[in-house]
Amino acid sequence: MKKIYNFSAGPACLPQEALASSIEAIKNFKESGISLLEMSHRSVPVVDLFEETTNNIFELLNIPKNYSVLWLQGGASLQFSMVPMNLLPVGGSADYIDTGSWSAKAIVECGKFGKANVIGSSKESTYSYIPKDVQISSNASYLHITSNNTIYGTQYKKFPKINNDNTLLVADMSSDILSKPIDISKFGLIYAGAQKNIGPAGVTLVIIRSDLLEPKYRDLPTMMNYNTHASKESMFNTPPVFSVCVVNETLKWLKQLGGLEEMSNINELKAAMLYEEIERNSLFRSPVNKEDASLMNVPFLFNNKEIDDKVFLDFCLFRGLTTLKGHRSVGGFRASIYNAMPQKGVEALIDSMQDFENRYS
Amino acid sequence: MKKIYNFSAGPACLPQEALASSIEAIKNFKESGISLLEMSHRSVPVVDLFEETTNNIFELLNIPKNYSVLWLQGGASLQFSMVPMNLLPVGGSADYIDTGSWSAKAIVECGKFGKANVIGSSKESTYSYIPKDVQISSNASYLHITSNNTIYGTQYKKFPKINNDNTLLVADMSSDILSKPIDISKFGLIYAGAQKNIGPAGVTLVIIRSDLLEPKYRDLPTMMNYNTHASKESMFNTPPVFSVCVVNETLKWLKQLGGLEEMSNINELKAAMLYEEIERNSLFRSPVNKEDASLMNVPFLFNNKEIDDKVFLDFCLFRGLTTLKGHRSVGGFRASIYNAMPQKGVEALIDSMQDFENRYS
Repeated sequence: MKKIYNFSAGPACLPQEALASSIEAIKNFKESGISLLEMSHRSVPVVDLFEETTNNIFELLNIPKNYSVLWLQGGASLQFSMVPMNLLPVGGSADYIDTGSWSAKAIVECGKFGKANVIGSSKESTYSYIPKDVQISSNASYLHITSNNTIYGTQYKKFPKINNDNTLLVADMSSDILSKPIDISKFGLIYAGAQKNIGPAGVTLVIIRSDLLEPKYRDLPTMMNYNTHASKESMFNTPPVFSVCVVNETLKWLKQLGGLEEMSNINELKAAMLYEEIERNSLFRSPVNKEDASLMNVPFLFNNKEIDDKVFLDFCLFRGLTTLKGHRSVGGFRASIYNAMPQKGVEALIDSMQDFENRYS
Repeated sequence: MKKIYNFSAGPACLPQEALASSIEAIKNFKESGISLLEMSHRSVPVVDLFEETTNNIFELLNIPKNYSVLWLQGGASLQFSMVPMNLLPVGGSADYIDTGSWSAKAIVECGKFGKANVIGSSKESTYSYIPKDVQISSNASYLHITSNNTIYGTQYKKFPKINNDNTLLVADMSSDILSKPIDISKFGLIYAGAQKNIGPAGVTLVIIRSDLLEPKYRDLPTMMNYNTHASKESMFNTPPVFSVCVVNETLKWLKQLGGLEEMSNINELKAAMLYEEIERNSLFRSPVNKEDASLMNVPFLFNNKEIDDKVFLDFCLFRGLTTLKGHRSVGGFRASIYNAMPQKGVEALIDSMQDFENRYS
């Protein structure tokens, strides 16, 4: 069968090694004779799996000891609420930077529990850049950012600096976590839906400074309280066992590769190749501010409207390059080139762009 | 390899056919050339999968048209909160029947949003029976029951009758849904974690009368609002795609088998065989009230304390019969014999009990 390169924004391509090991886990998990899908979360092999997965992410992200790692459900969308429910005093306020649809959704949820100050927004330019000249409020409990904007293709290259001991930095890193080393100690809380760079849909990673675990401000639903999950190693209730297994296989693949420094070099290279081609190719242009251009999600548009987008999408599809349609709010094309997208996939896309130019320009 | 029968209370055994199809889905979903784990939830094959799964459950449970089916995350534990958040007026009250640890947890969560009236409880007798002589409060927004009690091994054989138009019947059916036909029209809302009778961990089924979808009482977090999920066919945010696929394969297996009437006959037979053996065998006894004895989870104890539980557990383990340890609140043994446990597994357990009696009595 033709080799397919899947440029989906998420759920997205996974390392082939992780997929192969996941199939083994369904057939017969760790020589137990039964499938992981049938295995109690209280069984030794599953408890070991969770411990190993947590250890692997501590190691890969170099997470300091005073942080806790949680494997939850509900995606970033549930975190939009859990963050203010746990971290925002009643009547308190938090700062948000609005860099796209996901930030905007987080802002709405915060507003249900306190005041969300929008201290920066690039909405007026279809979110084509990251606002950098922002003033953090002195009374903000936290500053919330979206580190990478899947839809618009922008990404923080430097995180905002907070010169204020009372304000935490909180980040939705759903679409660029594990793509490069980061300094976790600068953050109070980081969350990420797994289905882009961590694993399959169905599990959400939360990294939280352990002194923030105990809720201080509200009588929370038990499941919305970070401490519920931390105190039971993410096994307060039945966790999404299989999704965590695929995560662990993905983390093992990352370690094998050489860790996040090496991953970051590969990601820089893949993105540089693709952006260079967009700039060089007479047919295409990038809609985003160059210095903020995402290494994970690369939107690009036709320079003029003479050719229908569908012509290029079909041209790519015929070559096995799928899911390249841009989000409706940007239009055109979007190549999501997360960790698991091999360099060969990016090369195949560039070849396709060049052949298309030869035929249509 | 020796055939293993896994009596886990959940996550629990799944139909072999469903496991085999799930492996195919990971290898190459519906001839797409890519794994279901990598596939966007907005893609046609995944949207079709959700539609098919929903249609299958409508058909199997004969769900009336004025109900909605949702595929959520967070398990029954999150439903303990979502139910009162959505259905209980501010300052209102709901009735609960306390038939075990899971009911008790649901009661605690309700108390955070209003008054939970406990109108019946069998706690004083280690939950060995279902309280039937209960008086439903005239002002109760709903009556909440746990239809089957996984830990204690009791089950409603008849659901409470509500003679009051204002009070809804709400049930946690996590551990016996799909084990028999039920009259959905008697319920306002039914919820169930998948990992016992529906599929693997990571997805939660909610069946809700559609006129109850719109929240009336609170400004809810978007993710806690049933209508959020109903209005987007459970795709408001990235759903647990693979878990839903395994659910669908399990539903297809049930349809193939002849549906819930046939499943119910098989479950009645398996349970009757096992209870008969417990009654007959001089070494064992049942801790539960006979008329309330669960067809899904069958706890049993040694008649006297001369033999350590571990001796029988090891005896069974050697024969490939696993996860038979009773919950710590009951002790002894527990055989969970959900839909996917074949009659041969129950026969193997009965053989083991008889051989053990021959050796130790």
